[in-house]
Amino acid sequence: MPQMDLEQRCINTLRVLAMDGVQKANSGHPGMPMGMADVAYVLWTRHLRHNPHNPQWHNRDRFVLSAGHGSMLLYSLLHLTGYPIYLEDLKQFRQWDSKTPGHPEREPELGIETTTGPLGQGFANGVGMAIAQKHLAARFNRDGYPIFDHYIYAIVSDGDLMEGISHEAGSLAGHLGLDNLIYFYDDNEISIEGATEITYTEDVPARFRAYGWHVQEIDGHDTQAIDAAIQTAKAEKGKPHLIVCHTHIAFGSPNKQDSEKAHGSPLGEEEIRLTKEALGWTTEEPFFVPDDVIAYYRLCIPKGEQLEAQWRETMTNYEREYPAEAKTCRRIWSGELPAEWDEALPDFRPDSGPMATRSASGKVLNALAAVIPELIGGSADLAPSNNTYLNGLDDLQKDNYAGRNLRFGVREIGMGGILNGLAVYGGLKVYGGTFAVFSDYMRPTARVAAIMNVPVIYVWTHDSIFVGEDGPTHEPVEQTMALRMIPNLTVIRPADANETAAAWKLALENQGPTALLLTRQKLPIMPEIKTKALEGVYRGAYVVRDSSLDRIDLILIATGSEVALALESQELLEQRRIGTRVVSMPCWNRFDEQPLFYKLSVLPNNVIKRLAIEAGTTLGWERYVGSHGAVLGIDRFGASAPYPVLQKEFGFTPENVVHRAMKLMAE
Amino acid sequence: MPQMDLEQRCINTLRVLAMDGVQKANSGHPGMPMGMADVAYVLWTRHLRHNPHNPQWHNRDRFVLSAGHGSMLLYSLLHLTGYPIYLEDLKQFRQWDSKTPGHPEREPELGIETTTGPLGQGFANGVGMAIAQKHLAARFNRDGYPIFDHYIYAIVSDGDLMEGISHEAGSLAGHLGLDNLIYFYDDNEISIEGATEITYTEDVPARFRAYGWHVQEIDGHDTQAIDAAIQTAKAEKGKPHLIVCHTHIAFGSPNKQDSEKAHGSPLGEEEIRLTKEALGWTTEEPFFVPDDVIAYYRLCIPKGEQLEAQWRETMTNYEREYPAEAKTCRRIWSGELPAEWDEALPDFRPDSGPMATRSASGKVLNALAAVIPELIGGSADLAPSNNTYLNGLDDLQKDNYAGRNLRFGVREIGMGGILNGLAVYGGLKVYGGTFAVFSDYMRPTARVAAIMNVPVIYVWTHDSIFVGEDGPTHEPVEQTMALRMIPNLTVIRPADANETAAAWKLALENQGPTALLLTRQKLPIMPEIKTKALEGVYRGAYVVRDSSLDRIDLILIATGSEVALALESQELLEQRRIGTRVVSMPCWNRFDEQPLFYKLSVLPNNVIKRLAIEAGTTLGWERYVGSHGAVLGIDRFGASAPYPVLQKEFGFTPENVVHRAMKLMAE
Repeated sequence: MPQMDLEQRCINTLRVLAMDGVQKANSGHPGMPMGMADVAYVLWTRHLRHNPHNPQWHNRDRFVLSAGHGSMLLYSLLHLTGYPIYLEDLKQFRQWDSKTPGHPEREPELGIETTTGPLGQGFANGVGMAIAQKHLAARFNRDGYPIFDHYIYAIVSDGDLMEGISHEAGSLAGHLGLDNLIYFYDDNEISIEGATEITYTEDVPARFRAYGWHVQEIDGHDTQAIDAAIQTAKAEKGKPHLIVCHTHIAFGSPNKQDSEKAHGSPLGEEEIRLTKEALGWTTEEPFFVPDDVIAYYRLCIPKGEQLEAQWRETMTNYEREYPAEAKTCRRIWSGELPAEWDEALPDFRPDSGPMATRSASGKVLNALAAVIPELIGGSADLAPSNNTYLNGLDDLQKDNYAGRNLRFGVREIGMGGILNGLAVYGGLKVYGGTFAVFSDYMRPTARVAAIMNVPVIYVWTHDSIFVGEDGPTHEPVEQTMALRMIPNLTVIRPADANETAAAWKLALENQGPTALLLTRQKLPIMPEIKTKALEGVYRGAYVVRDSSLDRIDLILIATGSEVALALESQELLEQRRIGTRVVSMPCWNRFDEQPLFYKLSVLPNNVIKRLAIEAGTTLGWERYVGSHGAVLGIDRFGASAPYPVLQKEFGFTPENVVHRAMKLMAE
Repeated sequence: MPQMDLEQRCINTLRVLAMDGVQKANSGHPGMPMGMADVAYVLWTRHLRHNPHNPQWHNRDRFVLSAGHGSMLLYSLLHLTGYPIYLEDLKQFRQWDSKTPGHPEREPELGIETTTGPLGQGFANGVGMAIAQKHLAARFNRDGYPIFDHYIYAIVSDGDLMEGISHEAGSLAGHLGLDNLIYFYDDNEISIEGATEITYTEDVPARFRAYGWHVQEIDGHDTQAIDAAIQTAKAEKGKPHLIVCHTHIAFGSPNKQDSEKAHGSPLGEEEIRLTKEALGWTTEEPFFVPDDVIAYYRLCIPKGEQLEAQWRETMTNYEREYPAEAKTCRRIWSGELPAEWDEALPDFRPDSGPMATRSASGKVLNALAAVIPELIGGSADLAPSNNTYLNGLDDLQKDNYAGRNLRFGVREIGMGGILNGLAVYGGLKVYGGTFAVFSDYMRPTARVAAIMNVPVIYVWTHDSIFVGEDGPTHEPVEQTMALRMIPNLTVIRPADANETAAAWKLALENQGPTALLLTRQKLPIMPEIKTKALEGVYRGAYVVRDSSLDRIDLILIATGSEVALALESQELLEQRRIGTRVVSMPCWNRFDEQPLFYKLSVLPNNVIKRLAIEAGTTLGWERYVGSHGAVLGIDRFGASAPYPVLQKEFGFTPENVVHRAMKLMAE
């Protein structure tokens, strides 16, 4: 069988599996895999450095399918090249509990690097991976020891490039000169509503050149051109690469090629038959893969094993020559923090005066950066406000990838997608900051972090209307509660500096994403909290100061800046002989996970008079205050004024807490 | 006093007011107004067609300060040119209940067109206004009667252009050839963290040319160049305009010009004194405005009155020649819907078979489009899935601005910002669709719509995990509840086709934004709902079918697709002698606004056994089920599988509802 023929059949196998997989599921997107089969074949067999028998080899090239709806392409490639995705799995496409869900879901053991589907996010994830690679290379590579020296490839679609996140991440990638990024743009001129010309006529190559990218345009069905473009990209240093591939969606389908009908629906049995006939394929057996095709793809295994073996040898020598660096590498790859790192956590003294939790966070972060070398991060142009800057450490820039301060620019969702890429890459502990109200911009990426359950830390400061003068557009109201609803996301709103330190400890130990909600305004450092903060934050809620009377008539439950208010109010209430307990509840999901006896020890069933105090939406608090409780919160937008005025106008004063509490007691 | 000198003093007045306003508030952003004073002066005195004595003149030019943090610039311009913002108001900058909050908040009577501050959103709002102007011009202008023929100007900053929304809206503006847009880019090379070169080195002119914009670059302190650039922009047809203005932030400040220190903090008394000295200004009296300066700016009043008078004359003649069109213009400007428009609402018959609420929505929308000529909208490339297309009507494209179908492309947040611009423009009823899970992308713009309380309608379909095969990235879980937390946003999750029709009626009559959450999957059209839907949706919750026994033991509260499940379960429960009431609760905020007697008539205090059923997060439902109730919801991410499998796996079956209900009854 001539080589060219085998090659063509290897490519067509990807088309056939996509058609058949989508048809069997009666759901999915066959057109993209069929159009990008040539590119994928050339990349995966000739360029991608990967070892299907060890999908987690640290120096593998990363492949991101940003156009996640074309998932059958990825599953087929993984199956054909020898990852533990079997033909049976392809037949289970989009079925319950299968390895092959509708969109790729991160599964490092299967070779699925990141969860994609929400368009544009994979694009940004790749930028994060590229930053991670450059950073770790700058920190750990030594002459003759290229421990980190791989590429990040991605397939991106018109949808990815229409999304704003592709602008934010693309612009930053150009700024940083990430030449380890090689992106293939599937320019098939078709989207769900029809031809892209109905809405999308920008000059994409010119746009990316404006970002500082190196751009090539090729026929995406010409394997030689594809190969040459990848080689050119690798040779051209200092810029990220976009290879614009002119393709035909559903290539090979006599009636649906170049039509939006092939975008999001099965081709149909009859059209599949016609397509297979046109491709010279058997129409008898679905999912048919010729033996020589699979054998050819499986050559990736010995090739990959050899590549990894070479790298392991390098690593062995590196360990001999640079034992300290090698040890750090091993440790950060394992995800373990340095021994006794938490001894660096500052202990804040109540008598040192009031401090905003954002300031406390900045102090904690800087203390930890000194002992956790893999801690890197930054802010979306608000570092001085978010207190996210690591003092005395460099910026990460294209002339210094070893810097640990990332300058994200005013690019919140781009930052979110990049943080996800940094986190899935492994080895680094990452954080990113902006104002809490702009967590809304990051929500789509925080959600994917939560789906993947990867440890990204969000430093969201200015966490209530007590932002003050900036007014309602900058004042969170609904954000805290709305974030608590994202499954797997640990949301912490610490009450003072010591709870903030505990929150950072929890965040760094957390397997999943963590959001820190921090104040702009100063808060007292409370002696009642000092010794309890660590266990309290880990348990999610705890008694800060109990009733001084012989009974508990009322529980004040507060979070963040409202805990100090609760303590102040408690004194006034006890003067009125209301036995009052104050509970700080920095982390709802942790509290919900506690054993019942602990929960009841904090919120005893028999105390039904409960007043929650939080400068945010009241909806949701009924969970803890119950049918007989009340909530002092905010169910409207904020306003522009100095924050002490807002405290008074919105009723966040001890007098009003007492008023609300007395009313509740009288009910 | 020579003219040039007066001009320079007019410009410097803007600088002085910004410095003094920020200083007095001890909070704000003086640098941008000082840098853009020359541009603002030229625009407002020589080009902007506006009438300070009638800020709501329909054919005024629109001015958007996308860089909303420079709000003192806008307030100063409004004050100087004669809008009802007085010197006293400038002194109240950023104070409680003032006309001059920290960021501009839409106030048409004051000349504030839109709420800005979250960067990039003003940019997109302007694109929406430009689409509105082009659309209405195409529909209503006649030879010799340019009823709609104005420009939309905006000042945008580096932050605006770093944001993804500027990409989405900018690309679409280029595609649509909106030559009525003239944007000034304040290219001062400074952002909060420092020089923009630390993160933002893209070639902005090349980027915008790639979008199809006409780009000029000028010295932003050269009034002749500014004037010439605006004239060139007006002469160059077929493309939106970006005028890149090279400026110095805090122009005139001896020590803080060109420094990030002037970005977000007052200059300080001493630096203000030095700056005023350098500008030849009195340092004695803060907020000093020379008489001839104010007199010169106030020439805008007679000029504006004359412009409006000319237009009114045109309008009078137009009314004579085109009475029907003129009548429609008057009506849509008033915001009133056509008489008896709601008679067009379809009535869905239970015997016509099951129907997804997204399909019902599509039918309603198409029926209404026929009788509401000002109804326009589209989808973010999901029209066939969102059922948002107006059949038989044209696309809005650059060769046909009269089209009523907008093709937003895969640009959710861009769509959100554009919808806000369309809504604040006035005259149009607007909607935009995408998948409900991607409402997250639109959240930042939905929030601003809610702050402004303007009537945007969101058509968010595929509203639960019952999306099915697409998997967790495409399956909403927390979205519905999280949307309910946005103040002023009316969220409706209708139970069937007739509730959907009622929801559309409410949405179109609503003064503020409305979110419709609609199913992918088919639902029965329920006879129990048919006659109750309208009042039920308006009241937010209602009894769909009461207990058939002589008592109510249990209330099932459900929304959307779960109402049919509740009815099915009710029958099984009543077979077990559990007197069961089923409540549909499509709209929480409406229900919360009902008088207590109504609320108690739906949810009587004495029935404490309540089971809520909603395919989404449980947090929040405690508000209605109380301490003795339970919630059948979803507190994890979804999964990829056909939706009947998911219904079973996640327990959304009558059997499981009965199981949960019996357990609740036994507690």
